[in-house]
Order: sequence, then C-alpha cells, then structure tokens
Amino acid sequence: MDFRLESDSIGSKRIPVDAYYGVQSLRGAENFRITGLKMHEEFINSLVQIKKAAAITNNEVGLLDKKKEGAIIKACDEIIDGKLHDQFIVDPIQGSAGTSMNMNANEVIANRAIEILGKKKGDYGMVHPNDNVNYGQSTNDVVPTAGKMTVLKLLPKVIRELTGLYGAFQKKSREFDDVVKMGRTQLQDAVPIRLGQEFKAYSSVVKRDISRLEKVQEEMRVVNMGGTAVGTGINADTKYFHNIVPNIVKVSGIELKQAVNLIDETQNLDGYVAVSGVLKTCAVNLSKISNDLRLMSSGPRTGLGEIKLPAKQNGSSIMPGKVNPVIPEVVNQIAFNIIGNDITITMAAEAGQLELNAFEPIIFYNLFESIDTLTNGVDTLVNNCVLGITANKERCKQLVDNSVGIITALCPHVGYKKSAEIAKTALKTGRPIRKLILEEGLLSEDELNQVLDVVSMTEPGISAEQLLMV
Amino acid sequence: MDFRLESDSIGSKRIPVDAYYGVQSLRGAENFRITGLKMHEEFINSLVQIKKAAAITNNEVGLLDKKKEGAIIKACDEIIDGKLHDQFIVDPIQGSAGTSMNMNANEVIANRAIEILGKKKGDYGMVHPNDNVNYGQSTNDVVPTAGKMTVLKLLPKVIRELTGLYGAFQKKSREFDDVVKMGRTQLQDAVPIRLGQEFKAYSSVVKRDISRLEKVQEEMRVVNMGGTAVGTGINADTKYFHNIVPNIVKVSGIELKQAVNLIDETQNLDGYVAVSGVLKTCAVNLSKISNDLRLMSSGPRTGLGEIKLPAKQNGSSIMPGKVNPVIPEVVNQIAFNIIGNDITITMAAEAGQLELNAFEPIIFYNLFESIDTLTNGVDTLVNNCVLGITANKERCKQLVDNSVGIITALCPHVGYKKSAEIAKTALKTGRPIRKLILEEGLLSEDELNQVLDVVSMTEPGISAEQLLMV
Amino acid sequence: MDFRLESDSIGSKRIPVDAYYGVQSLRGAENFRITGLKMHEEFINSLVQIKKAAAITNNEVGLLDKKKEGAIIKACDEIIDGKLHDQFIVDPIQGSAGTSMNMNANEVIANRAIEILGKKKGDYGMVHPNDNVNYGQSTNDVVPTAGKMTVLKLLPKVIRELTGLYGAFQKKSREFDDVVKMGRTQLQDAVPIRLGQEFKAYSSVVKRDISRLEKVQEEMRVVNMGGTAVGTGINADTKYFHNIVPNIVKVSGIELKQAVNLIDETQNLDGYVAVSGVLKTCAVNLSKISNDLRLMSSGPRTGLGEIKLPAKQNGSSIMPGKVNPVIPEVVNQIAFNIIGNDITITMAAEAGQLELNAFEPIIFYNLFESIDTLTNGVDTLVNNCVLGITANKERCKQLVDNSVGIITALCPHVGYKKSAEIAKTALKTGRPIRKLILEEGLLSEDELNQVLDVVSMTEPGISAEQLLMV
Amino acid sequence: MDFRLESDSIGSKRIPVDAYYGVQSLRGAENFRITGLKMHEEFINSLVQIKKAAAITNNEVGLLDKKKEGAIIKACDEIIDGKLHDQFIVDPIQGSAGTSMNMNANEVIANRAIEILGKKKGDYGMVHPNDNVNYGQSTNDVVPTAGKMTVLKLLPKVIRELTGLYGAFQKKSREFDDVVKMGRTQLQDAVPIRLGQEFKAYSSVVKRDISRLEKVQEEMRVVNMGGTAVGTGINADTKYFHNIVPNIVKVSGIELKQAVNLIDETQNLDGYVAVSGVLKTCAVNLSKISNDLRLMSSGPRTGLGEIKLPAKQNGSSIMPGKVNPVIPEVVNQIAFNIIGNDITITMAAEAGQLELNAFEPIIFYNLFESIDTLTNGVDTLVNNCVLGITANKERCKQLVDNSVGIITALCPHVGYKKSAEIAKTALKTGRPIRKLILEEGLLSEDELNQVLDVVSMTEPGISAEQLLMV
Repeated sequence: MDFRLESDSIGSKRIPVDAYYGVQSLRGAENFRITGLKMHEEFINSLVQIKKAAAITNNEVGLLDKKKEGAIIKACDEIIDGKLHDQFIVDPIQGSAGTSMNMNANEVIANRAIEILGKKKGDYGMVHPNDNVNYGQSTNDVVPTAGKMTVLKLLPKVIRELTGLYGAFQKKSREFDDVVKMGRTQLQDAVPIRLGQEFKAYSSVVKRDISRLEKVQEEMRVVNMGGTAVGTGINADTKYFHNIVPNIVKVSGIELKQAVNLIDETQNLDGYVAVSGVLKTCAVNLSKISNDLRLMSSGPRTGLGEIKLPAKQNGSSIMPGKVNPVIPEVVNQIAFNIIGNDITITMAAEAGQLELNAFEPIIFYNLFESIDTLTNGVDTLVNNCVLGITANKERCKQLVDNSVGIITALCPHVGYKKSAEIAKTALKTGRPIRKLILEEGLLSEDELNQVLDVVSMTEPGISAEQLLMV
Repeated sequence: MDFRLESDSIGSKRIPVDAYYGVQSLRGAENFRITGLKMHEEFINSLVQIKKAAAITNNEVGLLDKKKEGAIIKACDEIIDGKLHDQFIVDPIQGSAGTSMNMNANEVIANRAIEILGKKKGDYGMVHPNDNVNYGQSTNDVVPTAGKMTVLKLLPKVIRELTGLYGAFQKKSREFDDVVKMGRTQLQDAVPIRLGQEFKAYSSVVKRDISRLEKVQEEMRVVNMGGTAVGTGINADTKYFHNIVPNIVKVSGIELKQAVNLIDETQNLDGYVAVSGVLKTCAVNLSKISNDLRLMSSGPRTGLGEIKLPAKQNGSSIMPGKVNPVIPEVVNQIAFNIIGNDITITMAAEAGQLELNAFEPIIFYNLFESIDTLTNGVDTLVNNCVLGITANKERCKQLVDNSVGIITALCPHVGYKKSAEIAKTALKTGRPIRKLILEEGLLSEDELNQVLDVVSMTEPGISAEQLLMV
Repeated sequence: MDFRLESDSIGSKRIPVDAYYGVQSLRGAENFRITGLKMHEEFINSLVQIKKAAAITNNEVGLLDKKKEGAIIKACDEIIDGKLHDQFIVDPIQGSAGTSMNMNANEVIANRAIEILGKKKGDYGMVHPNDNVNYGQSTNDVVPTAGKMTVLKLLPKVIRELTGLYGAFQKKSREFDDVVKMGRTQLQDAVPIRLGQEFKAYSSVVKRDISRLEKVQEEMRVVNMGGTAVGTGINADTKYFHNIVPNIVKVSGIELKQAVNLIDETQNLDGYVAVSGVLKTCAVNLSKISNDLRLMSSGPRTGLGEIKLPAKQNGSSIMPGKVNPVIPEVVNQIAFNIIGNDITITMAAEAGQLELNAFEPIIFYNLFESIDTLTNGVDTLVNNCVLGITANKERCKQLVDNSVGIITALCPHVGYKKSAEIAKTALKTGRPIRKLILEEGLLSEDELNQVLDVVSMTEPGISAEQLLMV
Repeated sequence: MDFRLESDSIGSKRIPVDAYYGVQSLRGAENFRITGLKMHEEFINSLVQIKKAAAITNNEVGLLDKKKEGAIIKACDEIIDGKLHDQFIVDPIQGSAGTSMNMNANEVIANRAIEILGKKKGDYGMVHPNDNVNYGQSTNDVVPTAGKMTVLKLLPKVIRELTGLYGAFQKKSREFDDVVKMGRTQLQDAVPIRLGQEFKAYSSVVKRDISRLEKVQEEMRVVNMGGTAVGTGINADTKYFHNIVPNIVKVSGIELKQAVNLIDETQNLDGYVAVSGVLKTCAVNLSKISNDLRLMSSGPRTGLGEIKLPAKQNGSSIMPGKVNPVIPEVVNQIAFNIIGNDITITMAAEAGQLELNAFEPIIFYNLFESIDTLTNGVDTLVNNCVLGITANKERCKQLVDNSVGIITALCPHVGYKKSAEIAKTALKTGRPIRKLILEEGLLSEDELNQVLDVVSMTEPGISAEQLLMV
C-alpha cells in the first residue's frame, strides 16, 4: 500500500494514500479498538451537516473564501448522500468527548474538498481540517449538537411506529369489542372485562408514550453551537455566533435553537437522560403489554388460550407443532436492553466534570441503539403480531361462565360477607354461583339475570336504585 | 391484654381490644414483617382523604345514611389531623397491591366511626369497613390514587427546595461574576471562564430540573377512582362514578381528574416511572454539581482550591483541622440512591400483569423516599453549603495567569498548528506563553494584550475584523 | 432543658446535659436530616466492638491506662447489650465517609466511660473521644471494618432462611413427586414434567444461591484496621497494628483478617459490590420462583390452577372470596428493591476517589436493607407460603391428558415433520393425538402406550433400541 | 436470483439457491430485524462444536450412520475454521430462546453436509436439520450450553489482559516507590503516601478482580446438554445422555460438566447474572482507577499534575496543545456500559417462566459485549496509558512540603485538639506548620524532624516508645 505522511502535535504517521481520513482519525481508530463497529450513519450525517452550515456561516462572516466554501459544501453533500461513510473509521465507543469523531469528519471533508479543488489528499494548505472545516467550532459544541440532531432524526421513526401500534390496538379493540373475558388481578380471577377493552387500554397507554416522546424531543432542540470550547464562545465571531444555528436549521431541516446558557448546555447532558428516561418508560409499557400477550396466548391447550398470536416460525427444534410468542419475546428483550442502556446513559451523564462531560460517545452508543431497536421492535410487533391476533371467543366465554369472580356484582346487593361465603362454597364444592344464590333465596331469577349480566359488568353505570332494589 | 375476636374469610383472630385496626390489618402486618417501618404519613392521609370523599359521595348517592357519613367523616378528619397514625400497622413493603394498606384504613376509620356513634370497636354492624367505608371502591382504584395524591403533596416540597437552590446559585453567580478562573475540560486546562458563569450554569440546569418536575407532576393528576376492581367500574353507581373525583379534589385541595381510560390507568403504573425518571435526571445534575463543588474546593493546599465550602463539622477523627465537603457528599449519595430507586420502580412497573399491577407498595416505598431525601438533601445543600461558599480569587487568578490553555485565543490569528507548537514549547520549558509569542514576533504587544485578555475570552463577540487584523 | 457547652474546630455548641453524644454527633445530626431513620443496630454494635478491641489493644501497647481501658470496655459492653442506642443520633445517610458515625460512637463511649469513672459527661479530660476512644484509629479504617462485621452478622441469617427454603422445596418435591403436569416453555405447552421435579429444581437453584453467599462472605473478612487514615498506618503503633484485628476477632467472635494491602482496602469498596451482586443474583432466582408460584396457582377457575397457595388474607376489598398470592408478591418486590439497591451500591463504589471512598453510608444503608428484607422475605415465603402449598393433582393430570406437547415423544419414531403434521391436525380439529396416530397407522396401540407414557417422558433413558423399534 | 422452495409448519418459502441457511433461518431473520448485527463469532463456533459432538455421539449410539456423521463433522469443521459465517443470518436479538440461532446452525450444517455428500442444498432427505443435525438436542439445551462455552472462551482473554494490567501497575509501583506525594481523602489533603503505594494498591485491586473472574467462570462449566426440551431429557437416549458432554469437551477443549439437576439448569440463567456481576465489580474498580488517573494527571498547569499520561492524540479541535486522558475516559465509558448491561442481564434472567427462560439472546448480546469491550479496554489501558505514565516528582514533593495534612503525625505527641489549632493557624496565616510547632515549643527541632519525616509517615511502625518520647 502507498502512504502519505501526516503529522500532528503527537508526531507523524503514515496514512494510506487513498484514505480521506487523516492522522488524527487514525490515532483515534488505533487508540479505541473497542467494539469494531461504526458510528451511526445518521450521526455522521449530522456531523457533516453542521460542517456544511459552518462553512456557509464562515463564508458569510468573511472568514472562509468562496472557493473553499464551495469545495467544503460539495464534500459535505457527497457524504450526506451516503458517500465516503467507510472513511469514518473511529469506534463509536471512544475517549475524549468525541474529538476523534469530530476530527474524522473534519479530515474526511478537508481531504475530499482538497480533491475537489484539484489537489492531493493531505495537502492541508488548501483546506485545513482545523483551521477551515472546524473553524469557529469545538468538538464540545459540534458533538453534542450532532448527537441531538441524530436523536431528532431517529425519534420521529419510533413515534411513527408507535402510532402504527396505537392504530393496530385500536383496530383490534373494535374487532374484539364483544368478546367478554375474565379479568384477572394478581393473576387471580377477578371480574369480567371485554377483550376489546383490554386492547383499547393498550392503545391508551401507547398514546401516552407517544405524547411523552413528542414532548421530550423538545429537549433536544436546544443546542450549544457557538459556545465553542466551554460555552463562553471563545474564538467565535459575533456574527458567526448568531448565524450558525439558523444555518444548521437551513441545512438539515431540523428545528433547533441556540441555548440561552451555553455553558450549562456544554457541560450537562441531562437532556439525553430525559429522553432515555421516556424511552425507558415506553419500554416498561411495551414489555408489560408483551407479557400480557404471552399470557393470554399461553396454551394452546394448557394455558389461558384466550387469544392466538399469528404463527411466525417453528417454535421448537424438538417439539413439533409448537408455536411460540416470538415477537412479544423480542420486544421484552428490547425493553430490558433499553432499561439497561438507561443506566449507562445515567451514569455517563452523572460523570461530567466542570466545563465538560466527556462521556457523550457511550451515551450516543446506547441512546441510538435504544431508539433504533425500539423502532424495529415495534415495527415487528405491529406487523408480525398485533395485526394478526385472533380471539378465542368460545374459550373466553367458557372461562367467564365458569368463574367465581362474578360474585363481586352481588356485593352491593347482599354485602361483602355473604358474597364471600357463597364464593367460598362455590370454590369448595365446584358448584355454579348462580345456583347457590337461588338456593339461598338471596335474589329472584330475574334479579339474578340482571345482576349477573356479564356484559353490563364491564361498564360502570348501575344506578343507586338498582343497587337498592333488593 | 384484652382482646376482641374478629373474623374474615380466612378465619377468626384475636385483636387487642383497644386497637382500631382489625383482623385484616393484623393479617397483613403478620404476613409482611419486612422493613419494620411505617407507611408514609402523607400516604396515610391521602388514603383517608379518599375515604372521606367516598363517604360524602356515597351519601350524595343515597347509599350511606347521614349518621354513618358523619361518623366516617369525623373519623377521617381526626386521622388527617395526625391522630391514630400508630394504628396503621402494615409494613410499607407488602404483597397484594396494597389491599392491606386499604383495609388498614378501612378498619381504623370504621372502628373510630363506630366509637363516635357510641358503640364498641369491632361492632361492624354499625359501620362496616368494606360495606360502608370502602363502598364503591376497590384497593385497585384507592391505592394508586392515594399514591398519586401523595406524590402531588411531596413534589411541591422538592420544587420549593430546588427553587431555593436556583436562587442560591443565582446569588453566587452575581457575587462571583468578576472572578476569572481556568475552565477545564476533561480535567485538563482549557480556556478561561468566570466563576460567576459557572454558578449561573448551575442555576440554569437546576431551573431545567424544576421545569421538568413541574411538567411531570401533571402525570399524577389523572386517577382511576371509580374504576373499582379492574377499571370497568363494576359496582360503582353512575352518580358516584362521576362525583367521586370532584369530591376528592374538594376534600384534599389537590387537583385531580378522572382518567378517560380507567382500565389502562388501573393496570399501568408508568406515571410513577415518568416521575421517577425526572427525579433521576435531577439527581444526575445535582450529583454532577456536587462533584464540581468538591473538585473546586479540593485542597486546601494540594487541590484546586478555587472555592471554599463552609466548614460544617470536623472532617476527620484522626487528621486535625481537616474539613470535608460533607454536604455535597451527602447529595451525591442521595443521588445514587434515587438512581437505584428508579430501577426498582422501573422493574415493579414492568411486572404488572393483565388487569393490575400488584407492585405499587415497592414503588411507593422507593418513590416517596426519592422525593423526601431529595427535598432534604437540597435543603442542606442550600443552607449548609451553597450560600456559604466563598471564592479564592487570588488562587483563581494565579492559575489562569499560569495556564497554557489561553493559547486557544491565538488560534484565529496564527492558526491551530502554530499555536500548538507554542503551547508545547511553553509546557516543555515552563516559560510563559506571552513571552514566546512576542519572541516569535507573531503579534505585537498591543495585539497580544487584546488577544490574551482573559475577561474578554469569557464571552463570545470577537468580530471578524479583529480576527483578521493580524 | 439544661445544656453543657462543647466545642470543636468549628466552634462551640450547646449539648443537652443528659446526652451521651457530643458536639460532633450533633453537628452530624443537624447537617444530615435526610431519612429520619437510625443507623442499623448491628452496625452500632460492630462499631462499638471495634472500640472495645481498640481499648484493649491500646492498653496492651501501653498507650491507655488500665483505668480508662476498664471504663471504655464497660461502656462498650453496655452498648453492645442494647443500651444507649438512642444516643446514636446521626442519620444513616450522611456525608463524610462515616466520620459522624464514628464520632457518635466515640463520644457516647467517652461520656459513658467518664460517668463510670465518676465524672460528668463532657469532661473529656478524663476520657477523650479522639485521643482515647479513637486512639490508633481513623474513621477510614473503623467504618469500613464495622460495615463488614455487620454484613458478616447479617448474612448468616439470610443463609439460614434460605436453607429453610431449600428444605421446604425439598419436602415439597418429595410430596409432589408423582404429580405429572405439563411442562411449559415460553408459556406454551411443551412436554410433561413432574411437579416434584419442578420443586426440586427450585431447591437446586436455592442451594446454588446459598453456596454463592457462603463464598462471597469471605470477601468481608478482609479488613483494613490498622491502616488508619489512608492505609499507610500513620500514627499506628507497630504492636497495635498487629494486635488490633486479632482483638476485634476476640471481642466479636467474627473471623476477620487484616488486609495485605491496606491502602487498596481503604480506598476500594468492591467487596460490598461483590456481596450485593450475589444478593442480587439470589433475588433474581427468588423472583423467578415467585413468578412461577403465582403462575401455577393462577385461577382458581380461569388460570393454570395446578397448585394452591395457602390463603393468608382476604385478597380484595371489593371481590369477595378472592385470595391472592400475596407472599410471592412481596418476595417479587423485595427482589426488585435489592436489584435497585445494587445499582446504588455500584455507583457509590465507583465514585471513590484517590485514597478513600466517602460513600460508605449509602452502601451500608442499601446493603443492610437488602440483606434484612431478603431474610424477612424468605422467612415469610417459607412459613406463610411454600410449606402450605398443595397440588391440584386432578387438574394437572387433565391438562397433560389434553395436551398436544406430548407429541414430542413421537419424534424419534416418526420424525419431526410427520409429528408436526399430526400436532397441527390435532390443534385444528381438537381431536386427541393418540387417535390420530392410530388412524394413520404410525404405531400399534402397544407401541403407542409405551411411547406416550407420560411418566417415563419425565426422565431420560429411552434406549436406542427402543427408539429404533418402530 | 435463483431460488429453491423450502417448507416448514408455517408454510413454504423461497430460499436463494446458493444459501446454506434454510427456511427457518430466513423466517428468524425476517421476524427479527432488530440490530442489523451478526451473532458473535465465538458463539457460532460454540454452537457448531456442540453439533459436531452430537453427531459423534449419535453415531456412537447407533442413531446416525457413519456417512452422515462424517459429512456433518466435516461441515462443522469448516465452519469452526471460519467458513460460512456469513450464512448465519439471524439477528443476535431475537425471540424464542434462540430457536432461530439453533436452527440457523442446523440448517447451514445440514446443507453443507448434503453438498459434501454430493447432493443439492435443500435435499433434506440426505441430512435433515432437525432429525439428524439436531438429533437428541433441543434449543433449550444447545443454546444455553453454547452461551456458556462462549463465555468460557472469552473470559480467559479478559483475565489475560487484566493480568497484564496487574503487571503494569506492579512495574509502575516499583518505579514510583520513592515518590512521596500527598494522600487525599474526600479530595481534601490528608497524609503522605508514596506514588508507588498508590499503584501497588491498583495492582492489588486488579488482582482481586482476576481472582473473582477465575472463580466465577466455574459457574459456566455446568451445562444442561442432555436435558433436551425442559431438562427431563425427553427423547434423549441413555447413552447419548451420558456421552454428549464428554464429547463436547473433547471437540472443544473446554472443561464442562453435566448439571446434576438439568431442569434447574434449563430454566435458570443465574449463572450469567453471577458472571455479569463479577464483570460489573471489575468495571467499578477500573472506573475508579481511571478516575484517579485522570485526577492525578489533571493540569498540566491548573490541576493536580502529579503524573503525566502518555499523549496519544490531540486533545482538542480548538485548543492547541491540549492532551486529554482519552484512554482512562474510554475505560470509564466501557465500565458504565458494563454496569448498564448488567441490569439488562439481570432483568432478562428474572423474566424466566416455568421450564424455560426465553431471554438468552439479550443476555448473550450484553454479556459478550461486556467481556469483549472490557478486554479491549484493558488492552488499550495497559499499552496506551499505564505503561507510559510518568511521575512529576517535583510537583509531588512540592505539594507535600506545602501541605497541612502532615500535622496528623503530630497528634500522638500533642493530642488532636492542639494539632487542630496549629492546622487552623497554618491555613489562616499561610505559614508553614513546622515553624508554628517550633514557635510553640511543642517539640524540639530533632523531634520534629523525626515526627515530620514524610517517608516514614507512609508506613506503619512507630513504636509506643517513640510516641511517648515527647
């Protein structure tokens, strides 16, 4: 392989002659061989959109000539179009608050711009990674801003999927509206509920999660661009300071606003904790729903068997015909992972010191994964599971008819104690509740039919008159 | 001791004759000897406020006569006034979704009401814990509602303390506005910042936490009263169903609204996760600030020594004269505890099944502790620490004067590479940067004075003209 | 109230004249009003045992005269006997690495010793909290050592309870050995298993937890007494240095050994993390078992209904006759709490800096709670739940007979694909597997009886000959 | 592209004609598009080693003919040699307890074996994924066993790196043995310590971590092979049952033993929690050490500046000459990630139900990442940081000489109170302690030299005689 020689404060280093990255990227790549993975595509694009906006701004301010600006913009556009992503060689888990990420972007853009201007890569006199591409910026404002932009690109995807899930649950709630089934509290027979109500409740909780996510993404719109190294804006020209954020908005199409207190915004990563906390809350709810789907579809013969999930794959390499609730299971696991990621993000945010929190890389690594896997998990949950769920109406009916919990409806008429006695007798003898009540002469058959009507048990609305009729 | 005999579905049991609690409370107390602690005072009061409102509502509906209503209300008022709290004997950590908590309230109120009506405790024909006090309710709507009311009583306290902290940091930011000190990123010398800016950033992040807490407490206002057992409102009279929440609002003075989807609200505890998540985010910020205070006050002779915390107690049993940053240290620990509590709350919320989440007790135990300890921690942070902080102006100045990081300001004038060379030489030789720049003839003395003015380095606003002057 | 005046480096302060604690305890109490709780009884005793041993050692060395030694020992013995515990006034959550805890012990002991010697409390010329009681010690060796002693006192209790649980599961495994039931994987019908095997598996996992706890408690035996302030042993006399640990062993009856590297042992609290990690692992297992017990006892009519837990209390304030799995539920919650506590302990241990980790108080607060609640939780699990579990043999049999999963046993005889076809037909038509196999002429009735014998399916041991017989 | 048609219980599906995977792999891949990543290489190899051992065992038992056995073994060997890894197409995060992972292995091996036997892929009459490759096995014994084997392959790597770190710290501890520096507790000046002692303490804690990891890996040696679906060994031939584990040992070279209770071992994943708990403990220690390295190297001019980390890359894109502690920073982040992973693993292990825990995939995903990133992090910590650390002897000396903490050594001679007074005066006036003591006539100059000798302060061993000499 042919090499060019590049040098920095640490010394000089051979760089493959075809590489767009430079000495600082390479040092970063060598120092941090941690996961073997790449930075998130959207994060790379966000970094590069900032660089493009900075070039535009620096030109507006008179600190970057038109020629260089043009070359930088063209280089940026190519990368945003998906080119040269293989030149981003630094590991997503890295030390130094993302300096390597930022320099990787600076170097790739500079070298591509140099090429565009007809020179050879490494000829930094033409376009310099620090003095031109990074001009007016610091890793400390670029990287957190790029992180927020990335979150703002990814969150709408998960919101879209959750909206799909909301719709799917709503659809099912209508479909199952007339399926009366036994409600269970603490896994013990309680009182009747309609399967449609169950699914409507799922839609309701998902809606709450959507609303939380929509609100929390506002946290990400406040960025510290212009604050440079520590938020004081050292080396930032006044005009640049005011124009940079509007220009990023123009370039990226993402709504952002400059923080009022840039020092705060530079040293604190609590916004990411807030976002992760909401994702975690959503994960809790989806895991609970997944648990319910697995419980209600347990069987086919020796479980609750109230619903059937669509069969998506053989359930077992040894047990023929077995079909497992594989989609809810993967959602459970994604949820556990998001909850674990939240702890990592929390600890990283807590570990900031003085003017900077250097632990953004691990926050990004975990937060982007949380959002992406949640997006993908909800996608498969909707399309490979929820939409295909069918109700086992007969089974549901049979369980309700056979249950003891409906005795609850008797309470307002004969009191808690008497009702409990009948329940106990029913359980001991295995005899139906209805018969026992009639035998005891507690209610007439007509009254009983009204009181024990399971559908009306699923909605509030008995009147005091009814209650007192006995 | 004298006893009375009480019985329930499980069997009969001797109860101390003076006890206001009854057989179900006692079983709960015996089954769950876990922490030896009591339920939270405010939670007891919230439970009892619900009971009072229910009595009023049941009377309005015609299901509870005036006499019983009056006795129940009087009993409730006494408890809310702080009486009989010793009769709440069940452990805060308990099984069964809080049935024991709820029954403890029902029994104490019933027995006190019986007494008020001139009868003996245990004479449940007079006032029955289930059929009268608990009428129209279920543990499953009472307990989560009481939990939310408690949070709504406790959160304003922490918000008040945080507002105090905000004020304290603002005050200090003005006091320290002219103290230029060295900014550090990744604990390495960066560029100058003013100590006042540092404290203003602290006030800024605290303000964000306050705003988050104010928003998230809205999550707690939506309650499932009226939903009874599983949210379908079984056994709830229509009028009761509509009046119960407004009556609780009247009784407690706390703004609440009935959930649109009571089934969802009965089975999901994600609102508590959301609140805990915001508390956790606040904990992260306070821990970071505490770390900074400990770092900046490190010394007195061999640390950074930029600020001095007020001495609150001897720092050591062996090292004389040692004074430690004990207040920030306790805040750190409170923060760690809140983060751990958040995991417990998260897991408990995830573990809900079908129509109910039975794990409220552990959520309450942790969430109330998080709020209370945060309140107390911020109180001591404000009054025993922040307000008494003094700046070591000389030390701050000396460190800035001696630093190399101010070279950053040279960058726009001579480029990153040249600046880096000078920095390196300065560090190697120990010589002042200023001298090296003049020797190299990079700037005139006048220019240098302007460029290296540390105060102006702490605000953005150099113009392009200035930048290009060299 | 009457007061005496005491002073320390911070200034002077009025102390209630009857108080055994002194100025430093009071400052600690005032600075840290966090939980309102007391330090753990066993921790107080451990602190005091160290003080007693130190007095003995200092006398041996010639640095404490017999009279003072005697008075200190007597004071210590009284406290260990349970007296004066109300004089330990500092909050368990506190700043300063436990200095307040240590000084609280020093002051109470000193004042009681002064009294014993016939003088008035506060007359520290007689016996001085620092110069006599604390002689040769530092908070930094006393407090972590007392913490470890406390863990070594508490862990055997949880091990004893777990041993009881192991025994209870073993007992039940014998009792249920002939109850064939359906095994379920992923909540789907799998292959038969015996209920006794299920409970034996529970005993097996509990045994593993016991073994882990026994091993990990060795971590607690290594203490840093003698290391004084930072582990270098400054101010510790050579002989004292060698005698102090053996003397603590003598006084407390707890096996301890002095760390080889006292500096390491002073600054690192990873031993507590290791213990908490093992408790957490145990919590995971107990929570899983509790989940199983709740699943298998779900019903009574609309759940799995394979076992019945003893009824311990009314299950509902609204649903008569409902009995809930309240004991497993409390174990679940204890488990969630232990897992949250583990995070707190982890973060606190990570936050140590240089020569000390100042965050022991929050570690102790959480770790002691984890052990105590686990002990109490297992106690109630054994006595109020496991020992009273009964099997619903008929229900178990009926489910197995009705299941499709037994088709698995056919696989080695007719292949996976054919078996899957039959399973599918059975599920679609609702017809019994046995009939379908005979109709297809796959096996003779005799062969089928052998192949589908559900008891033999629960043990490995078919021979190749059998497999090939068809 | 050309396709072949394959079918399973769900239906039929087109498979690329060149693909070695089959219909079940493809369904798995389509159902779980979660991370876009591949299963861990070592995990694939472990799976395949089990398959090879199973083929050998099945042949021994007489259930697989020599020809098929040979083809399967050859296919396995090729994969273990690194071939066909691209055919493992299922996502590491997946539902169904790893059925897709297991079937992916079964199908790839079967198809390659079919080819080896001269037939076309998909001709499962030749070699069947289930009936031949998977014979005698279940996902439920194969996957947890492969997971443990993987851990047993990866853990020695991290142990090796930690041993290197231990060595590096030992080396440095010798190198720095004569560098006296100020010890700090709670970041406040305490008493002198030698830099060599500091690094020796680091080596000591690392040694403890190594020892814990060595012990905990024994947890992984107990496997449930032979237990098949639920641990009862259904469908496992007796001889196969006894031979399979020894054959895996032979094939893989990894020491394993069959669990005594296979049912327990099939349903519980606590062993992984135990391993993760120990990794987490190690992460805590490495993070604390990294924090120390960052603190001690803070500066260069305005921090502690006691040591210098090797410069590995430019520290800033804006601040010239800045060099950051990037290696410790990446270790911190790896540690935070491991702690978060531990929570995920904990929750997944807790979520097991009845005969199986279906959440192995997320456990593996996190656990393998924890081990790999820890291995890589320690590698870079040793080679890019610790080995290159240099001491700033002069700075260390200057700080000690200037400190007040050395007053501690005076305590045994003049008492705590007097010492505290002098310390206070020194701090207030800025005057050296030595002078103040002499002025007060507390000690003679000779005595003072002995008492204030900082080197001897770093080791215990003053005798009572010395203490009493004054």
